[in-house]
Amino acid sequence: MFVIGELINGMYAKVAAAIRSKDADTIRALARDQAAAGANALDVNVGPASADPVRDMVWLVTTIRSGLNIPLCLDNTKPAVIEEGLKISGPGSIINSSNADPERLRMAMAMAKRYKASLIALTMDAKGVPQDRERRLEMASVILETAAETGFSVQDLWIDPVLMPIHVAQPQLCGILGLLSDLKGLAAPAPRTVVGLSNISQGAQERRLINRTFLVMAVAGGLEAAIMDPLDTELMAALTTAEMILNKKIYCDSIRKTGR
Amino acid sequence: MFVIGELINGMYAKVAAAIRSKDADTIRALARDQAAAGANALDVNVGPASADPVRDMVWLVTTIRSGLNIPLCLDNTKPAVIEEGLKISGPGSIINSSNADPERLRMAMAMAKRYKASLIALTMDAKGVPQDRERRLEMASVILETAAETGFSVQDLWIDPVLMPIHVAQPQLCGILGLLSDLKGLAAPAPRTVVGLSNISQGAQERRLINRTFLVMAVAGGLEAAIMDPLDTELMAALTTAEMILNKKIYCDSIRKTGR
Repeated sequence: MFVIGELINGMYAKVAAAIRSKDADTIRALARDQAAAGANALDVNVGPASADPVRDMVWLVTTIRSGLNIPLCLDNTKPAVIEEGLKISGPGSIINSSNADPERLRMAMAMAKRYKASLIALTMDAKGVPQDRERRLEMASVILETAAETGFSVQDLWIDPVLMPIHVAQPQLCGILGLLSDLKGLAAPAPRTVVGLSNISQGAQERRLINRTFLVMAVAGGLEAAIMDPLDTELMAALTTAEMILNKKIYCDSIRKTGR
Repeated sequence: MFVIGELINGMYAKVAAAIRSKDADTIRALARDQAAAGANALDVNVGPASADPVRDMVWLVTTIRSGLNIPLCLDNTKPAVIEEGLKISGPGSIINSSNADPERLRMAMAMAKRYKASLIALTMDAKGVPQDRERRLEMASVILETAAETGFSVQDLWIDPVLMPIHVAQPQLCGILGLLSDLKGLAAPAPRTVVGLSNISQGAQERRLINRTFLVMAVAGGLEAAIMDPLDTELMAALTTAEMILNKKIYCDSIRKTGR
């Protein structure tokens, strides 16, 4: 399981304040803590309130990079903001994200190739997020067709089925779990899948319980990556246990006490 | 999900002592607490140390029945012990269990029909528990063939793939999860599945974490019932959340605070 730490996001007041005051220590600590807790990459998002997203993205990437060598997942709706980040983010970077509009996909795939990055593509278009499994699958097909057409390697692609909050879209979640296995049959090699895990529990009580329960089910269904909170120790313990049950990690009595 | 409470089992010292001293209050309290926590049925097992299993089974069933109207799952290796229990256990009783030996199955199915009970059949034979998914599937086929041959309704059948402890059989668990979906295609209507959940964590640290993680994965894979501890509140919360994600229970913000 590829864990993408979600905590460096200007949506959080503490991070927004650190970006405003150029408080590098706070950002570096968030990066270090997530890596130490088991993150394989870090999402970097300047947040909705940034007055100058390009400047803030460059500052965040520079600040994280000054303390840590870990792949970064550059998260913004504007390609120009992502591109400035890609110029300095180094190897293993991830573009987060493009929707399934062929025009946008072609541009994002070209940018990913230019910077040797991988790309998260969402199964949604300008009209929004589909309600059902079939329409999400159609959009995944569009993503894969565009990749084939532009010579973009499926191995550099992550498909994100777009998790919606359970309190607004409960009936969709089962379809998303089913979609994870549908996608295994859509191409060879199969595209890898990623979810923005915390979306599922937005607006809910018991957020952590919902997050970790969905993650365990999704891992059983073949999910390869999640943007999530690696500092949630119960979540990480559930993930490790799920991987152990699936025989992807070796069982050991002291598995939890020693950390990971 | 059909929850079969596991706590009335002479394997536990407290229950063994209650059986020895005919302490009906302890047994009735265990029955009442499990039902209140969400158990749909109760497993009844005199335990390995019983000097007179028939007498102890009859006492347990009579004692539970005197305080509570809930289906009982009569758990013993000896058919005679189960039959004496069935005579007084009332509607919805479950025989736990028969192995997949056709001779034993025929006898157990005849007994189940006689008492209008359902039957848990294990995918193992006199030679023991199979190591792999394929062999378990073959035994499930034997169970279904024997049911067809004797006119035993698949709707009265529970197939138990026999969970082994993770510390001795880690590689089997993934196959058992796969088997749950294999079984959906084996007959129409599909046989329902049940596991003895706590087996998976025998001898392990973090037993509850392992139990609830496996249960969530198995529910996502189509498991219909588990013999488990309904007093483990984290386990029950994980189960409810899993069913909510699968759209089998309606999401409600107060889902946990109100109990179930």
